[in-house]
Amino acid sequence: MKGIFLLSGGMDSTTLFANVLNEGWILYPLSINYGQKHLIEIEAAEEIVYEYQRFYFGRRNVKDLRILNFDLSQIGHSALTDTLWKVPEEMKDQIQTVVPFRNTILATLAAAYGESLELDPITIFMTPVKEDFEVYRDCRRDFYDALEKTLSLGSIHGVQVEIKTPFIDMTKKEIVALGIKLCVPYKLTYSCYKGLRPACGKCPACVERLEAFKANGLTDPLEYLIS
Amino acid sequence: MKGIFLLSGGMDSTTLFANVLNEGWILYPLSINYGQKHLIEIEAAEEIVYEYQRFYFGRRNVKDLRILNFDLSQIGHSALTDTLWKVPEEMKDQIQTVVPFRNTILATLAAAYGESLELDPITIFMTPVKEDFEVYRDCRRDFYDALEKTLSLGSIHGVQVEIKTPFIDMTKKEIVALGIKLCVPYKLTYSCYKGLRPACGKCPACVERLEAFKANGLTDPLEYLIS
Repeated sequence: MKGIFLLSGGMDSTTLFANVLNEGWILYPLSINYGQKHLIEIEAAEEIVYEYQRFYFGRRNVKDLRILNFDLSQIGHSALTDTLWKVPEEMKDQIQTVVPFRNTILATLAAAYGESLELDPITIFMTPVKEDFEVYRDCRRDFYDALEKTLSLGSIHGVQVEIKTPFIDMTKKEIVALGIKLCVPYKLTYSCYKGLRPACGKCPACVERLEAFKANGLTDPLEYLIS
Repeated sequence: MKGIFLLSGGMDSTTLFANVLNEGWILYPLSINYGQKHLIEIEAAEEIVYEYQRFYFGRRNVKDLRILNFDLSQIGHSALTDTLWKVPEEMKDQIQTVVPFRNTILATLAAAYGESLELDPITIFMTPVKEDFEVYRDCRRDFYDALEKTLSLGSIHGVQVEIKTPFIDMTKKEIVALGIKLCVPYKLTYSCYKGLRPACGKCPACVERLEAFKANGLTDPLEYLIS
């Protein structure tokens, strides 16, 4: 079983990465530089892939990270890509962090990468989680069902495209609990939307992450500006 | 009525551009530099937009051309983007000119551009034609129906996305016949997959274009290497 794995370098996708490797999948990790202000997350993805190749599953199962550059800051209209927008510091402003059609672009690039590798079927792993449902419409299963169908209809020779989203009904608290069992090296993961090191601790990504560790009675091993 | 218009600079999309402007639409033309070897087509699109702004419909109805850069040659696996592949010179090899998921990417970028302009609904014009049906699976209406649904489900606030493909059942012969009535400046359009000037006259794009003019008893005003 082979699949393309969209790895952001954050807590959720890294936990799913560990979990899917554990199930025996051979994964082609893929990160997209889409012009995000927190491009630093791709450095995290690189370290994570390297770590999993060396210490966990080996290079037969964990292929080298592929990085593609598709600059969505040309379109902007999001706090994550547009220099005229500020990264919000309150959960109520999370809608500003939506990047127009980002997940459609990411999944389509993953499918194109799968096509170039001549995978059949083309299986893509993505990591929407329960908390994403409310604000991010492109993190809902009905969206992925429609996208799967679109990509299958649009592939060169009619190869089936599957988008697997195993964590879509899991909370971040549950994800951290699973990740701890899988020995996920959370110190290497990165989530802050501001792209700061230490992480800001205030943006929606930091807030949700800190809460998930706290809810498990744990301390996030990542360094933060606030304590 | 406002819409995003994906303008390649070729014969088909330019004719549709003229036809839709004629119906009274206000159009935001969009061209994508996706790493095509025949990038020269974007120069054609620039000239066409400029021509329509000056001499046909004015800058109120014809907005400035937006060009976005999304380099699909990073993925390659197509004669149009991959330097290791040769542009075919026989119609039977047309399948090699499919760019993996190009139309999914183009439509999604158009939708994102529409989102940034805050259009509601987001209407996108694309120009698949009857001859595309056989080889290009992403030029069929069932594909566009699925893509419309996907994009509508994935838009930030649930805005409806419509993909209009008025020429999908028209042959290139019929398109040229319509374009002549609309005084389309075909001399400015460009189609050759090799990106040559004069055009090669042998690649599938040149062959189909030459035949369409011939079938109307006309001579293509574009210069060709072969006569």
